[in-house]
Amino acid sequence: MRNFTSAGLEPDPETARELIARTAERVIAYLGTLEDQRASDFDGANEIARALVEPLPESGQPYEDLLELLFDRVIPKGCNTNSPGMFSYINGGASIHGAVADLITSATNPYVGYWGAAPALVQLEHTVVRWLCELVGLDERAGGVLLSGGSLANLSAMVTARKARLTADPRHGTVYASDQVHHSVPKALMVGGFAEDALRLIPSDSRYRIRIDALAARIDEDRRAGRQPFCVIGNAGTTSTGAIDDLQALAALASREQLWFHVDAAYGGCFALTERGKSALTGIELADTVVLDPHKTLFSPFGTGCLLARDPEALRRAHELHSDYIDGVVETGDHAGTANFADLSPELSRGMRGLRVWLPLKLLGAGAFRAALDEKLDLARYAATRLDGTPGFEVLAWPELSILAFRATRAGLAPNELDRLNRELLERVNARGKVHLSATSLEGRFVLRICVLSLRSHAQAVELCLSELAACHPS
Amino acid sequence: MRNFTSAGLEPDPETARELIARTAERVIAYLGTLEDQRASDFDGANEIARALVEPLPESGQPYEDLLELLFDRVIPKGCNTNSPGMFSYINGGASIHGAVADLITSATNPYVGYWGAAPALVQLEHTVVRWLCELVGLDERAGGVLLSGGSLANLSAMVTARKARLTADPRHGTVYASDQVHHSVPKALMVGGFAEDALRLIPSDSRYRIRIDALAARIDEDRRAGRQPFCVIGNAGTTSTGAIDDLQALAALASREQLWFHVDAAYGGCFALTERGKSALTGIELADTVVLDPHKTLFSPFGTGCLLARDPEALRRAHELHSDYIDGVVETGDHAGTANFADLSPELSRGMRGLRVWLPLKLLGAGAFRAALDEKLDLARYAATRLDGTPGFEVLAWPELSILAFRATRAGLAPNELDRLNRELLERVNARGKVHLSATSLEGRFVLRICVLSLRSHAQAVELCLSELAACHPS
Repeated sequence: MRNFTSAGLEPDPETARELIARTAERVIAYLGTLEDQRASDFDGANEIARALVEPLPESGQPYEDLLELLFDRVIPKGCNTNSPGMFSYINGGASIHGAVADLITSATNPYVGYWGAAPALVQLEHTVVRWLCELVGLDERAGGVLLSGGSLANLSAMVTARKARLTADPRHGTVYASDQVHHSVPKALMVGGFAEDALRLIPSDSRYRIRIDALAARIDEDRRAGRQPFCVIGNAGTTSTGAIDDLQALAALASREQLWFHVDAAYGGCFALTERGKSALTGIELADTVVLDPHKTLFSPFGTGCLLARDPEALRRAHELHSDYIDGVVETGDHAGTANFADLSPELSRGMRGLRVWLPLKLLGAGAFRAALDEKLDLARYAATRLDGTPGFEVLAWPELSILAFRATRAGLAPNELDRLNRELLERVNARGKVHLSATSLEGRFVLRICVLSLRSHAQAVELCLSELAACHPS
Repeated sequence: MRNFTSAGLEPDPETARELIARTAERVIAYLGTLEDQRASDFDGANEIARALVEPLPESGQPYEDLLELLFDRVIPKGCNTNSPGMFSYINGGASIHGAVADLITSATNPYVGYWGAAPALVQLEHTVVRWLCELVGLDERAGGVLLSGGSLANLSAMVTARKARLTADPRHGTVYASDQVHHSVPKALMVGGFAEDALRLIPSDSRYRIRIDALAARIDEDRRAGRQPFCVIGNAGTTSTGAIDDLQALAALASREQLWFHVDAAYGGCFALTERGKSALTGIELADTVVLDPHKTLFSPFGTGCLLARDPEALRRAHELHSDYIDGVVETGDHAGTANFADLSPELSRGMRGLRVWLPLKLLGAGAFRAALDEKLDLARYAATRLDGTPGFEVLAWPELSILAFRATRAGLAPNELDRLNRELLERVNARGKVHLSATSLEGRFVLRICVLSLRSHAQAVELCLSELAACHPS
């Protein structure tokens, strides 16, 4: 093997070619054995981690040793987000196309914060944003920005809503969401310096959707108490159960009450590619801002979130700030959609995120993604039906999209015993490592979830999940 | 060529191998011709951009066509951050090693927000953070988190300072920095919901360092007016001139006044690898938080920033917020430095950023980076000396690190005419595209900058820059 260490920071083309080829070999081997790899594996993980604690090395070491360390020891430990058996959290896995796009992006290293730095690549990223607008039904004036994930996107959304609608003393502003809201929203409010009690959690109904009557009552109450309601958040695919709020009703209420209408569709939004998703998401097109996570439902690598805005000027008013030394690049292009991303979000420098979404969609077409998402919708329904018919299990939340919540049951158990039973089941299933599941809490109960979203999860993986659950039931 | 489109989202290993190989060929060709590529090229850029405006495609298209579009038309337009001739802004360029690391990261797609999701990879990223702590002299209790760049890192730093030190009504808090502070700081304060007048800009001295006397006076004045000073920011390498504040004096003042001491070393920090840098940065080790940008001074791809904290618990107190559905992964490892990154920053999900810093440092050793940075320090001094000796030019800020500010002169011109002369020079140089420069403003004057930082900028590129300046001087 060529000596990559002595080639230094600027290897010649042949050395660079071999560096990529050696890396590719390991990546291909990894991808080719995904079916046989464990969905999660923590055996000896802490020891392997401890061996990585070391001072900054003065000299380099052979690449082969590093690849071996990474692929044989380090990467296998933990949850394998690409495994067909990953049914935990909200996990799409990444197709190889995003990785290939990232190779291009990181090697060519463009800066896309300002139009004037790389006009065509900035447009490419704007085109991705426009595709996502199109997907959720926002019209041609809409725009947005790609961010690292739903957390930053929700942060920027709250900052935008504040700038647009909070006219009173900022400490008096209040924001509304159901008790199923993702915790990145309260975190965004914390980071964004909102009042500690700014977030009003509204009870949800039996399908875990925000109760519109309770919401309206709380807004009235807050107004009477001298607060300024300025934003209502709709969930379009909650993390616990995939529930979708009544977005049309929320839009009507937001309009009536002059609130900013934000929809957190980090998980659910891209299902709009499918007929069933589109129908379930009715009303999302009425939002002022929408969060989507292509790293969930478009199988992009982690680090690909998006904030869309019906009026991108609202993002700009909340985020734009210039400086002498960037004077030269701030002019935008001569057609629509050429806003500077640095003016629409908290980030000035950051990597280009567009190519990892653009390239797979251009190469495969949206049809390939629609088919994959339809398959996940089918499989989640199938899993729920099967579990519902299995003695010792009950489905607590039928899939609105591709998440279902359920639990193991046993006659005569008290609630806390039932919780323990389910904790035990989860531990058993995950310890075997063939599939990986996670839990949540619904009305104080410890419940299990299956999120069918992984790119490589097909019928066989779902069958494996069901048989693992049956085999591990502590009955 | 294999049909990558019909292979769909999950190509077989042979197809995936060829997909990577085809991509690698184009990347290698791009890298191999960097010397011949223009440093910037905007010819027809808007037309190429416009051709990228299109609706979401339902079907895919051949990969060869997409690669051709990207490498022949889209990527060449704009500033080439990898060009030896890039002397504008603060631009390190990216070595191929970071891109190879990103191929691994994006293909294996680990989630590193919580220790329990990928213990060994989380530790790998902690190790990178610890190396950066070591670099700036923070002791073994220090830690931090990798972020997308200096903007997010400064945001998190301000949020941390607020939580740690701002006890009064948040609207009364004040933050101090010199008039040379990077605009990501006022932007961070805007996004973070601080008072509109929270930032107090303190005049700088003739070397563009904060005036400690003026700072102390302003703090006194603010306290008397009922404000609560809670944070002072030191610049360690300003964007305009690379100036480094007297960090020891700032640390002493911060300690005396009980202020949070934050150092923005996005550009300058990693120069601590060199003897001269270490000496120039004396006092940085006394900071409470430090921002570094490996995507500048460690030649990582864009999207690699870092926030370090003397006490990582301070980051956690400002950012931690849990939820039912992530219950299972929040336990940390059994040894030091295993904090959950999601608890230390605004981001819950985001890509792994550690490998693109770890792999190059492990493969090449810190020595390779030290040599590269020493070369940039030498070249900047050389460029300043040469310009100083060239009739028709004057150096306005000698390089503290690798940035110098200068301008073209001509006898008998009024200030505004001199500004115009320099604008004209900048336009001429950049229009030729062999080297790329940018400007800034110093005491109201329009001045030019040379930032010698690009990985591939060696003596020859600096000579080219000097000869371009001489050739374009509008005299």
